[in-house]
Amino acid sequence: MLDLVSLRRDFHMHPEVGFTEFRTASKVAEILASLGYEVLIGPEAMDGDARRGLPPADVLEAAYERALRDGANPQIVEKMRGGYTAVIGIKKGSKEGPTVAFRFDMDALPVLESTDMDHVPQAKGFRSRYEGNMHACAHDGHTTIGLGLAEKLADGNFSGTVKLIFQPAEEGVRGAYSIVQKGHLDDVDYLFCHHLGTNVPLGEVHGASLGFLATTKMVAHFHGVSSHAGATPEKGRNALLGAATALLNIHGISRFSTGSTRVNVGVLEGGTAANIIPQYAKMVVETRSVAEEINAELEQRVRTIIAHSAAMHELDYEIEVVGGAIPINSDLDLAELAMEEARAVEGFTSFKVSDSNSMGSEDASFMIKRVQERGGKGTYMAIGTDIPAPHHHPKFDIQEEILPRAVALLHRIATRFLT
Amino acid sequence: MLDLVSLRRDFHMHPEVGFTEFRTASKVAEILASLGYEVLIGPEAMDGDARRGLPPADVLEAAYERALRDGANPQIVEKMRGGYTAVIGIKKGSKEGPTVAFRFDMDALPVLESTDMDHVPQAKGFRSRYEGNMHACAHDGHTTIGLGLAEKLADGNFSGTVKLIFQPAEEGVRGAYSIVQKGHLDDVDYLFCHHLGTNVPLGEVHGASLGFLATTKMVAHFHGVSSHAGATPEKGRNALLGAATALLNIHGISRFSTGSTRVNVGVLEGGTAANIIPQYAKMVVETRSVAEEINAELEQRVRTIIAHSAAMHELDYEIEVVGGAIPINSDLDLAELAMEEARAVEGFTSFKVSDSNSMGSEDASFMIKRVQERGGKGTYMAIGTDIPAPHHHPKFDIQEEILPRAVALLHRIATRFLT
Amino acid sequence: MLDLVSLRRDFHMHPEVGFTEFRTASKVAEILASLGYEVLIGPEAMDGDARRGLPPADVLEAAYERALRDGANPQIVEKMRGGYTAVIGIKKGSKEGPTVAFRFDMDALPVLESTDMDHVPQAKGFRSRYEGNMHACAHDGHTTIGLGLAEKLADGNFSGTVKLIFQPAEEGVRGAYSIVQKGHLDDVDYLFCHHLGTNVPLGEVHGASLGFLATTKMVAHFHGVSSHAGATPEKGRNALLGAATALLNIHGISRFSTGSTRVNVGVLEGGTAANIIPQYAKMVVETRSVAEEINAELEQRVRTIIAHSAAMHELDYEIEVVGGAIPINSDLDLAELAMEEARAVEGFTSFKVSDSNSMGSEDASFMIKRVQERGGKGTYMAIGTDIPAPHHHPKFDIQEEILPRAVALLHRIATRFLT
Amino acid sequence: MLDLVSLRRDFHMHPEVGFTEFRTASKVAEILASLGYEVLIGPEAMDGDARRGLPPADVLEAAYERALRDGANPQIVEKMRGGYTAVIGIKKGSKEGPTVAFRFDMDALPVLESTDMDHVPQAKGFRSRYEGNMHACAHDGHTTIGLGLAEKLADGNFSGTVKLIFQPAEEGVRGAYSIVQKGHLDDVDYLFCHHLGTNVPLGEVHGASLGFLATTKMVAHFHGVSSHAGATPEKGRNALLGAATALLNIHGISRFSTGSTRVNVGVLEGGTAANIIPQYAKMVVETRSVAEEINAELEQRVRTIIAHSAAMHELDYEIEVVGGAIPINSDLDLAELAMEEARAVEGFTSFKVSDSNSMGSEDASFMIKRVQERGGKGTYMAIGTDIPAPHHHPKFDIQEEILPRAVALLHRIATRFLT
Repeated sequence: MLDLVSLRRDFHMHPEVGFTEFRTASKVAEILASLGYEVLIGPEAMDGDARRGLPPADVLEAAYERALRDGANPQIVEKMRGGYTAVIGIKKGSKEGPTVAFRFDMDALPVLESTDMDHVPQAKGFRSRYEGNMHACAHDGHTTIGLGLAEKLADGNFSGTVKLIFQPAEEGVRGAYSIVQKGHLDDVDYLFCHHLGTNVPLGEVHGASLGFLATTKMVAHFHGVSSHAGATPEKGRNALLGAATALLNIHGISRFSTGSTRVNVGVLEGGTAANIIPQYAKMVVETRSVAEEINAELEQRVRTIIAHSAAMHELDYEIEVVGGAIPINSDLDLAELAMEEARAVEGFTSFKVSDSNSMGSEDASFMIKRVQERGGKGTYMAIGTDIPAPHHHPKFDIQEEILPRAVALLHRIATRFLT
Repeated sequence: MLDLVSLRRDFHMHPEVGFTEFRTASKVAEILASLGYEVLIGPEAMDGDARRGLPPADVLEAAYERALRDGANPQIVEKMRGGYTAVIGIKKGSKEGPTVAFRFDMDALPVLESTDMDHVPQAKGFRSRYEGNMHACAHDGHTTIGLGLAEKLADGNFSGTVKLIFQPAEEGVRGAYSIVQKGHLDDVDYLFCHHLGTNVPLGEVHGASLGFLATTKMVAHFHGVSSHAGATPEKGRNALLGAATALLNIHGISRFSTGSTRVNVGVLEGGTAANIIPQYAKMVVETRSVAEEINAELEQRVRTIIAHSAAMHELDYEIEVVGGAIPINSDLDLAELAMEEARAVEGFTSFKVSDSNSMGSEDASFMIKRVQERGGKGTYMAIGTDIPAPHHHPKFDIQEEILPRAVALLHRIATRFLT
Repeated sequence: MLDLVSLRRDFHMHPEVGFTEFRTASKVAEILASLGYEVLIGPEAMDGDARRGLPPADVLEAAYERALRDGANPQIVEKMRGGYTAVIGIKKGSKEGPTVAFRFDMDALPVLESTDMDHVPQAKGFRSRYEGNMHACAHDGHTTIGLGLAEKLADGNFSGTVKLIFQPAEEGVRGAYSIVQKGHLDDVDYLFCHHLGTNVPLGEVHGASLGFLATTKMVAHFHGVSSHAGATPEKGRNALLGAATALLNIHGISRFSTGSTRVNVGVLEGGTAANIIPQYAKMVVETRSVAEEINAELEQRVRTIIAHSAAMHELDYEIEVVGGAIPINSDLDLAELAMEEARAVEGFTSFKVSDSNSMGSEDASFMIKRVQERGGKGTYMAIGTDIPAPHHHPKFDIQEEILPRAVALLHRIATRFLT
Repeated sequence: MLDLVSLRRDFHMHPEVGFTEFRTASKVAEILASLGYEVLIGPEAMDGDARRGLPPADVLEAAYERALRDGANPQIVEKMRGGYTAVIGIKKGSKEGPTVAFRFDMDALPVLESTDMDHVPQAKGFRSRYEGNMHACAHDGHTTIGLGLAEKLADGNFSGTVKLIFQPAEEGVRGAYSIVQKGHLDDVDYLFCHHLGTNVPLGEVHGASLGFLATTKMVAHFHGVSSHAGATPEKGRNALLGAATALLNIHGISRFSTGSTRVNVGVLEGGTAANIIPQYAKMVVETRSVAEEINAELEQRVRTIIAHSAAMHELDYEIEVVGGAIPINSDLDLAELAMEEARAVEGFTSFKVSDSNSMGSEDASFMIKRVQERGGKGTYMAIGTDIPAPHHHPKFDIQEEILPRAVALLHRIATRFLT
């Protein structure tokens, strides 16, 4: 039987950021296989072209080699090479029935974990071994819960099919879309996603978290012509003039009377030296809105501004979408049924069908939407744990007693629908 | 015989700004005709489509009616209606010979003339009767000198052809081009242009004024969509955001290592009320450079910036060229010959072949360039007069004794070349 | 007895914009006096320094003279000269009791009234005689209702004091503040404000209109130094560079997570000619928010941006506040009591205690707030009338049958509280 | 006797960028000492606080350790630790006389040297061993020539004092000022600076290179407040909004009618992630002009723009000056005397007293100015060598036959004045 705490601590010690979850994903695949699941990995699990914000090849390769050094199964991880780190485990039950899916995200954050002795992972010796990376958003717990659930359902003693989706690159809302585009949500009747924490205390569980925002994350590249700023400034085409013009105008995009919006230019970098007309600049932009259509219009306005800020200074440009999400419209009847099950699980004492406990944005939104488009239902749940510090903080931690309880909860839910 | 002082004072009292010189031009045409000149007026004298910065139709019409009220010959002025205010007088000599042309500009400025008693026109009773307009750049003198020269040459006792070009709308560098485009400079062998004053004292004369800049004057119109700024700001397309973006970026155009440049956004006006997204904005821009090609590149950069500042905010736009000039490369050998003649004219005691006494820009430049392109020669001269206040100032004035001397000078020059 | 329809049509024919309501206000004062009211006018009715967006002296004077020509009582209107156009009528009842106040706004809009024959005022011959001005927001009706109410209460047969406040310059939210600052709301126990129309149909009445926004309207003046753009550009201090920088940065002010906001630069005007570095620029800005504190922070950010955009280019600047309002927190218990009375008035068949029928912003907000600060109560009501075109439209009109019904409603309300 | 070619190749193989010339400077000091010169190094040679654009401590330390590994004399280099890499060699002659100084710059560039076999240092095996750094501006030659001259003058058989100044950090115009501020130019009667190449062919020599520009290089740091761009954008203070506003306005600084100018924002970097309001931004700016006063005004305008762009967005800021130079007004009579000597040196066949062969900016300007302020004279010479590629290019190289000729030239000049 799986030791959930050990598993979680192992994941915690080896935090891998988006699309580099080679070691984590290979462990997941190995365990799923050992439990008799059909396991999809590599290009079978995800559409490579639909991955957003993929790291550069050398970064992917270095992470791959690190995973090999740290115990990743070479046969498995070889198929994930180049950033194909999704894993899907499928088990058909003994009888016909619906397809019920659960989603677990596996990636870590570029956060330097605390070394203070009041930080439990440090005190208990399972602090991150990958300096500068950290599981500061509970995905180590999510992955562990997914494997615990896999074990519970391993006997196939149910009606229908269970599909366990282990997703890379949730941070930056980058990975879910590539799994959706591969078609793995098309046959799902019921989809359950969840997050630990999110300001919900231990013992409490919410059937549907509302308030997720539509968002788009973009990187714009401006390409001009460098020239000596003293000798021949007129021969240059100044990438920073274009980028700064775009920046001011992006911040000047109108408020919308139809719903809340956000725009931000989070990063701008360009130029090389005082006496050179800057040849290149890079800009990272995000838009958000409560409504998908408004966010789409914001994205379009940002694109228009960037295109013409570049053209104004005779620059070339490209825009990459490196992340995105849409709002989540959880099915509240599904959430209600999930809460009915929760009442039967020991350790849960407080229940809400829905909250507006938004974490910002989530790319599980693409999965839930696809399921709903095909006539299925989905919900995004919040499972409480007390946390000593906010999500993404160097001292973030979860209470490990939530791991078996969450497994029990998801198992009851699975059983309820696999009939 | 013409009374030059009376003529000049009559012009001074009736100052007409660019393309509205109906009264002035009709007087000029009348006198030239009475002296036996062939007189070209209206669309025969200028290419209507090549006029730059033409005032609106109602302004032209009001000025036309004022001219009629103030004594313009109805038969003559009728042909000038709508802003065709150039006049060309041609006299063929008794023998064959070269074509020698002189250019005189006729327009006044939108300056409110001083009422101080130390201002001679006020003291002597010939202050402007057209409140807000004023001959503050000596064009009343230039026109008078042209008529004086016409009288001297009226007997046709020379070899060749004399062509006296009375130009509208020199201010704003708008009128010369339309005369050039009509072809009236194509057959000219020698062209003499001049200005009174320009910091040259009475008694001094320069054969060639150097340093005139190439320039383009443009008006850009930005058209967006208005909307209530509180209720539905996102429905607007903000013309002022586009215009302000253009303004900053126009001022940000690079210096050129290949020659001095200037750019200016002289006027920006847009919007109607605090709570309306601005639908329309207008911008007046000028570029200058010592070199015609650099100015052309500046103009192109301004156009590119305006086009993309508009498109960035989903605005429509148009750009009108409302004025322009090129540098003047006077023929110094011609200037030298002119100075030889000057030495023979009483009242002139100081002579320079050339100076760098730039007044900024001059559209006589188009005339001189056309003559040179056809193998002729041209120069732009400075004829001194002490002035109590700078050009364009409410107290600008000239010394009237320069009028007959300037006529004598130009007459000697004409005679020299009409052989 | 007053002929309400004739009165309203007389006001409609003589629409006077903010602070120029000389004829209207003198008629109001005359009628109130004839009904035995104590009448406060001129500097007794309002604090001159607290008037916002006062027109220039010559505009005020021209309107004053027009009012005299069109029948304003010279003794009365003389005291209003210079824009003191508030009128307050006070009547003490036969017994002691509370002070109950009603507010009526009198100003018209700079809208050109329709001449189509389907526009009732045109068809019936009472279209605006002041071309370009129009009562397109029902203030002619409001003023008429106020006088009708004055007549009903003229006998003083009640307990307490009635105060009828006829306010200038509601458009642009400019006039109420000066009446508040004079102290006229300090002793009010119950204040009732209202608007006709606002998308409420005839027969319906709302006790409290919610959703008014806090707003500030500002005019910023930027003063630089002009210079010839070709000859000595470096000597200029460019007012348009400062203003355009402010414009872009004002539009770039952050969204607020604490409540909806709006910012707009509605007007920008500066510069005189293509070849002059612009010496002066003017900018009209507004901010809005659902919350007074957020609007105050927006206003502060706008001020900071303007101050430093000016200083960046070595410009002087001033900022005038030309209008403003705060949100209205109507007392819903008062609104409920008012609706109780409404049920007893013939012609009203539909009732709401509150709506969120926002017209944008209203400076009655200052009056209601002052009353509430002193322990009194206030509400802003909506009284329905069908309208053929939106407020501020050239074909806006009201149904005149609402006039006596509104008088009856306010009379019942007054009587209810004057006990 | 020194082997100049070997020396130059040794320097070429060990290129050290500004203020990290530990190995080069210690070699120079060692040789000067061996020749009997008084040698000033470390804080005796330069004012530490007057060093501009000093690299960070860890960069200095790494370079220091590399120098130790590569043969720097530990006793000498220890005194240079932390970036004190100037060396001054002084030799008093046998008789009294004037003080004659020569300046040699020692630093290399961050350029990756070519590995093509047609690049002589690659072909002959003395390509840079410090990958990414390169002597691409002939300073290896300059340093070698300085040592060759030291050897020639080592016998002290002259009247007066010779002072050989080996300067760090000429690139970026950063190092000369610290030597001037230490007072080492205060007693100099004649100062000779020079550059190899600069488009002057082998065999030609110029007594004075004209056209150097005044320049200032600045780094501005903007400090704001980060905040989550979705959750609480209004709590942030956006460093990139301030920096982009500064960038556009710096590029918008007026042309000057009094002399050519340049401005450039060469680098802008800020922000960390799409969803964070940027807390910090850094900007690198340079100004240039033909005149020191104009450059001073440009610098002041840049400072004003940065200060108010920061304050506009409630940011803190600092500005560091990281480099600077002034124009050079070489004494043409000194240049003429130098050219007289040049005619006597074998290998030189073409001579100009002056050229306008500007390399941009040079901080030898501070040295020459100080000498002139104290009543001495100075000049900046150009010594020709054919070059296969432009200065700063990966294939830049010099002809080594110029080394002994340049030594001979400077020796003749020294001898001429040390009398």
